[in-house]
Amino acid sequence: MPDTKSLADGQRVLADLNALRAIGAYETGVHKPTFSEPHKRSLDWLVQKLPEAGLGAEIDGIGNVLGTSSKSGPKLLAGSHLESQNYAGWLDGPLGVVYALEAARVLNADPWFKGAVEVAAWCDEEGHFGSFLGSRSYVGQVTEAEIDAARDRTNGRTMRDALADMGLAGRARIAVEKGRHIGYLEAHIEQGDTLESGKLAIGVVTSIVGIWQYRINFVGEQNHAGTTRMAVRKDAGLALAKFCVAIDQRFPAACGPRTVWTTGRITLDPGAPSIIPGGAEMLFQIRDDDPSVIARLEDLLRMMADEASAKGPCAVTVTKLRTGAPAMMDAGFQEAIEAASKAMADGRSIRMPSGAGHDAQMLATVMPAAMLFVPSIGGISHHWTENTADADIVTGAQVFVDACRRMLSG
Amino acid sequence: MPDTKSLADGQRVLADLNALRAIGAYETGVHKPTFSEPHKRSLDWLVQKLPEAGLGAEIDGIGNVLGTSSKSGPKLLAGSHLESQNYAGWLDGPLGVVYALEAARVLNADPWFKGAVEVAAWCDEEGHFGSFLGSRSYVGQVTEAEIDAARDRTNGRTMRDALADMGLAGRARIAVEKGRHIGYLEAHIEQGDTLESGKLAIGVVTSIVGIWQYRINFVGEQNHAGTTRMAVRKDAGLALAKFCVAIDQRFPAACGPRTVWTTGRITLDPGAPSIIPGGAEMLFQIRDDDPSVIARLEDLLRMMADEASAKGPCAVTVTKLRTGAPAMMDAGFQEAIEAASKAMADGRSIRMPSGAGHDAQMLATVMPAAMLFVPSIGGISHHWTENTADADIVTGAQVFVDACRRMLSG
Repeated sequence: MPDTKSLADGQRVLADLNALRAIGAYETGVHKPTFSEPHKRSLDWLVQKLPEAGLGAEIDGIGNVLGTSSKSGPKLLAGSHLESQNYAGWLDGPLGVVYALEAARVLNADPWFKGAVEVAAWCDEEGHFGSFLGSRSYVGQVTEAEIDAARDRTNGRTMRDALADMGLAGRARIAVEKGRHIGYLEAHIEQGDTLESGKLAIGVVTSIVGIWQYRINFVGEQNHAGTTRMAVRKDAGLALAKFCVAIDQRFPAACGPRTVWTTGRITLDPGAPSIIPGGAEMLFQIRDDDPSVIARLEDLLRMMADEASAKGPCAVTVTKLRTGAPAMMDAGFQEAIEAASKAMADGRSIRMPSGAGHDAQMLATVMPAAMLFVPSIGGISHHWTENTADADIVTGAQVFVDACRRMLSG
Repeated sequence: MPDTKSLADGQRVLADLNALRAIGAYETGVHKPTFSEPHKRSLDWLVQKLPEAGLGAEIDGIGNVLGTSSKSGPKLLAGSHLESQNYAGWLDGPLGVVYALEAARVLNADPWFKGAVEVAAWCDEEGHFGSFLGSRSYVGQVTEAEIDAARDRTNGRTMRDALADMGLAGRARIAVEKGRHIGYLEAHIEQGDTLESGKLAIGVVTSIVGIWQYRINFVGEQNHAGTTRMAVRKDAGLALAKFCVAIDQRFPAACGPRTVWTTGRITLDPGAPSIIPGGAEMLFQIRDDDPSVIARLEDLLRMMADEASAKGPCAVTVTKLRTGAPAMMDAGFQEAIEAASKAMADGRSIRMPSGAGHDAQMLATVMPAAMLFVPSIGGISHHWTENTADADIVTGAQVFVDACRRMLSG
């Protein structure tokens, strides 16, 4: 059993999370897009809190907040993100930052404990301006040209303008210091219902699944919705609907036990009520942690497109937009999290892949990385009704702090 | 046989149509949205042409161009519109205006012919700012408040700003003068393939079908596309796709011989690649000239929505946005057009309803109205590849002028 001095303070964790929820509150969640005013205030809040954990605080030129320790001994990097999706939940991101802050407060202040937790809030994990820009910048994968080209997906504001408004224009970006950290730990809400439905407290993440994304285009013939007989139509929208239904019918027989697939966006061209759509497009995504399953499904998808084109009346093409290799989590760290769950949560943990992407997959390219999940009520995510029971938040904090202690000790 | 003096000049008609095509040309068609610069130039072109037909020209406060005659005897109003859909065809609108101009040139100049053709170009038939604003204004159905509220559907510009830019702010709107006209005649491209496939020259329009429009909403549960298992999803986009396919399967058994239906727009909420859509919406339209067929299909649509809701996992609701009664064309005028087709086009005509809406349906509320169609190559409409063979354009003009002569003669 750990010394009581290294226990998380559950009430302090809840108070911090609620303080962050009050910044940019929307219904019971938050609206805190990257580089919005409430996002800026959240970063400032963290900068003011980090000294409580004996950490020097800095915001770098891409909006990452880093808290660094001058304590001797091994250092563990921990964190998550503070911005939110539009009109989304209060814990997606802040939970991992506050857990990291709490672990740093508990462990860094203990003069008998060798080592320290350093804290990071990665900017724009939610992808308002790009894909994992903050953590990718830290691991050295973002060029100045990429920042030049980035725009807010909601309102088109350039990232350069946003950085200038934040007072960050021209500031240096902080990059990983090779050898400084033994690894990276991130906590997050599960965003699914595996833990809740199994009455579990902790998910020990084994891997972060890859995301394969496709654009599927349908080409028919644009025409007048009043004068074109049904028999001669080439309705690209109807072709798209049939394709979606065919995927729903045929994918289950070819997928793996955890595969998921989603059509997130549909666009008809020209999209007017009195015009038969001559074109249609869908954004389609497949996620799995087994690339061979993805390969099988992609083959099926292309075969279905060929069949639909051959049958007519519309031509169907599949374009791959994104290939995501899964990121494997460190085996030793998984054991440390599992041991912490035994100590602090009666062993109510399960090993599971993460279906969502996280900054940890970027950190995993430069150091050992690990993640732990806490339950999501109803599995709801990316919506302001997202929530986790206070008791689960507190248990998660205790497991997190204990896992940090074990990782730094081990 | 008519006097040769009252024949249309086919080359003059083609030259006028090509002059209008050169204003706002896009590929082989035009991009001439309402109150755009090329639309303004097209109206100015007509104002300059009308005196050739002995007509006094005026643009009124909603952008209608009216050419009025001081000749004694009966007067027939004829016309169509000069603006286009975005990036659309060159004949949709201008054909009817140039035919009317040609009929006025031929008949008004003949001192032995009793009566005159007056010419109208109705503004915004294509509905950039509303629904038949120009012709509805003329028949007294548009209030100032409706103009105050109208905005360009493409760019949001207010109609008041657009009218001011056109130099029309504060100008009076011209309303129908009861008893002035014996009726209204409009020519238009068919926008379908009935004439072409039947090797016919003229469609004698019997009625303009009603348009019934619906918004169909699907409510599921917004969630994370990576973490939510397939089995527990409530994907509103998939529910919409299934509904589209079900309409395609079940409507044919319940529809009439000429019914058409179209899903012109689909929107997923929030429409992001990594979020399972919690909401989805489709704009759905049914057209027929038999209200009892529409009633039967609407019942089926609502029954299908109830079935889908009961089956789950998404709730489906149907909201009626627009109910359009069909407009009947004048029987005597139909006979006049048919007689003109016998005289000028070897009787290659057919009686048919119009599946598309036209200004004639508005004029039909205040005076006898009629329409004639010329063939559309491949039935293509509302696209810049829309076209009609020159020979068909010339034949149509000859039938149109002869029909005007017959209608005015009684």
